[in-house]
This record gives sequence, C-alpha cells and structure tokens, in this order.
Amino acid sequence: MKVIQKEFLLKPRSRGFHIITSEILQHIPELSTINQGLANIFIKHTSASLSINENADPSVRTDMETHFNIMVPEDADHYEHTFEGPDDMTSHIKTSILGSSLTIPITNGKLNLGTWQGIYLCEHRNHGGSRKIAVTITGI
Amino acid sequence: MKVIQKEFLLKPRSRGFHIITSEILQHIPELSTINQGLANIFIKHTSASLSINENADPSVRTDMETHFNIMVPEDADHYEHTFEGPDDMTSHIKTSILGSSLTIPITNGKLNLGTWQGIYLCEHRNHGGSRKIAVTITGI
Amino acid sequence: MKVIQKEFLLKPRSRGFHIITSEILQHIPELSTINQGLANIFIKHTSASLSINENADPSVRTDMETHFNIMVPEDADHYEHTFEGPDDMTSHIKTSILGSSLTIPITNGKLNLGTWQGIYLCEHRNHGGSRKIAVTITGI
Repeated sequence: MKVIQKEFLLKPRSRGFHIITSEILQHIPELSTINQGLANIFIKHTSASLSINENADPSVRTDMETHFNIMVPEDADHYEHTFEGPDDMTSHIKTSILGSSLTIPITNGKLNLGTWQGIYLCEHRNHGGSRKIAVTITGI
Repeated sequence: MKVIQKEFLLKPRSRGFHIITSEILQHIPELSTINQGLANIFIKHTSASLSINENADPSVRTDMETHFNIMVPEDADHYEHTFEGPDDMTSHIKTSILGSSLTIPITNGKLNLGTWQGIYLCEHRNHGGSRKIAVTITGI
Repeated sequence: MKVIQKEFLLKPRSRGFHIITSEILQHIPELSTINQGLANIFIKHTSASLSINENADPSVRTDMETHFNIMVPEDADHYEHTFEGPDDMTSHIKTSILGSSLTIPITNGKLNLGTWQGIYLCEHRNHGGSRKIAVTITGI
C-alpha cells in the first residue's frame, strides 16, 4: 500500500468555473504507479471550491457561474460578513455548497473518471490569486 | 491493507431521488472481509449524483425532487447549455450541488451508516438510463 | 499502513453553524502518529451536516444560517414531509446540499487544513441533540 502526498499552487484564474484536470495531473506523475486506489484532491481555501462536471462544452461553466450568482446573490442585504466586498460572504457560501475536496478512484494508473467528467476549480472571488491544493493518493 | 475495486451499472431509474443502498451492497460482497476501512462510491456521470439521506419515508425523496426543481428551475432563461433539452443544464448544476461521490466508513464488515441513513441515486435527467458506479474499498 | 477508527458523540449544539475542529481533534490523539494520510469525518444523521469554512469571524457562521434559511425556506408550501415540524424536511435538504462527510489530508501528524479553514457542524434542527460522528484515519 502506497501513500503519496503532494502540495502545490494552481495557476491563478479569473472568477468562474475552470477545468483543471490536466494541471492537476501534471503535479502527480506518480499516479501511473497505482493500479487500484483513490486520489483525494483538497483545496486549502474557504472562497474557492472543487467540483466534477462536464469537460466539453464551455457553456456549462458559464451557466454554472450564472446560476450560482443567482442562487447566492451579491446584492442581497442579508449578509453581515462583507469586509472584503460583495464577493466575500457569497464566496464562503458557494464553497460550502460545492465542497472543498474530491475523492476519485484510480484504476490502472489513471483517474477513473467518466467520459464527460472533468475536475473544476470554482473560483468565487473576483481576485482569488493562486490556490493551494493538497493531493493524497492511496492505493496499490 | 486491502484495496477492492468494483465497477458496475445500476438499474435505470426514473427522474428523482432513489434509495440504492441494497443494490450497491449486492455488488460488493467483499465488504464482509473488511474490519475497519472506507468505501468510496463514485458515479461516472455529470447529470446524476449521489447523496445520503433518510431511508424511511418516501415523501423525503419526492420533496427533494420538488425542492431541487424550484432551486434549479428548468423554465429559467439564464441557461445557454440546453442542447439536450430543459433538463440538460439543470442536471449539471444539481450534480455539482449534490456531488459525485460518497465516502462511508466500514466497521465490522458493514457500511457504518446511521439508523436513518440510506444511499440515494439522484437522477436528474428525464431519461438517464443505467448509471455507471465505481466502488473502491480500502481497509483491514 | 494504519487504519484508526473512532466513534463518538459531539456535545449538543443549537441550530446553526458551529466550529468543531478542536472537539474533533480531542477524540483522535492518534492523529499524531500519522505522517501522511487522510481523515474521513462522517456524521451519522440526516438532519445535520459537515462542512469546511472560515474559522475566524463569527459572522460567517450566522450568515450561513441566514442564507440557508432563505435558500431552503421553512414557510414554503411544497413540503409533504413535515411530521416533525417545519424544520424537518428543510433539515434533510440542507444536509444533502452540504454533505455528510469530509475527507481531509493529514501531514506530519496534523490535519493539513488551510490557515482559514475550520470544520463546521451544521445543525439544521431546532433541537438536534448530540450528534454521532465516525472518524476513519488511514495513512503511514
């Protein structure tokens, strides 16, 4: 049984939903040594989150951003926590809805994702900067 | 330390929330050999999701479907990604809200769920068909 | 490779969002023996959930409660499952949105959380009582 752990920064991205599957994979070449196992991908922030969704049509990502901005509106008057601007509390709420980590099966040295699945960075802040990721791989 | 991995298709289900605990268990008889560990259940799709919720009263599942249809309405005009109909983009959004995988403790050869907890398949498409699941068990 | 599993009750908390990082850590002193691994924290209930969010300003937790009460309103007339009061079905929905478990990397004997991250108990019921938690640690 192996345990492999890596910590790295993602390239900074604009507010919105972004596919980061290949950037993640670049940081974990050791994946190829795992026959069966799991990869946990964890984001060490409270205003950006991770999700799995469609890896093809870019309109899925823009519609995600649009819908989350409606479901968690910045112009609502019920937020107290707005020290850092109108995208402060909304980013925390979106993060809890979407989640801070993903656990993905590894099979034959690869992430065992479905054909249409990609890993999303959900950047909720207007200027989030580089986000820190910890990947933990366990398997045989 | 053991790693057991299985991949299988669920029986197709209608749109809505469905308890699939016993169908999952049928595919992983090896669970009984694990004293302490974890089971990761991963759905390889972007328009159906997994959740844990009440395993008793069916009205919980119908209320879930009702509420998610209000929270992510098909008749909104803010979706661009509607190639496959009004249940296309809404299914992607619901999937990211609910999530693509569950990680459940295993204790004494069984899933260590609470008394009222069951595993839900959340089928967001009108005609989703059979959904592919990967289960990865690690433990001793 | 070690597997350590603990099951315990949290102190009862009022409805709302609460930081429980230090209470969790009190129950798993064995964490210090793990160099690299993962901690899965699982709540065995369907009307309370777990999340990771900001560990500093209390207004984040009150805003979370406010926002979830708007997003999943108790005074809506579309719920059938209200046997136990208006906080019954809404608690189930909030639980599925937020999730029943967290998987957090362990590095050098500690939870490898970001600077601002804490573990939240999200208590959705008016009188939830003590909540049962199962923690499963795997690692080397």
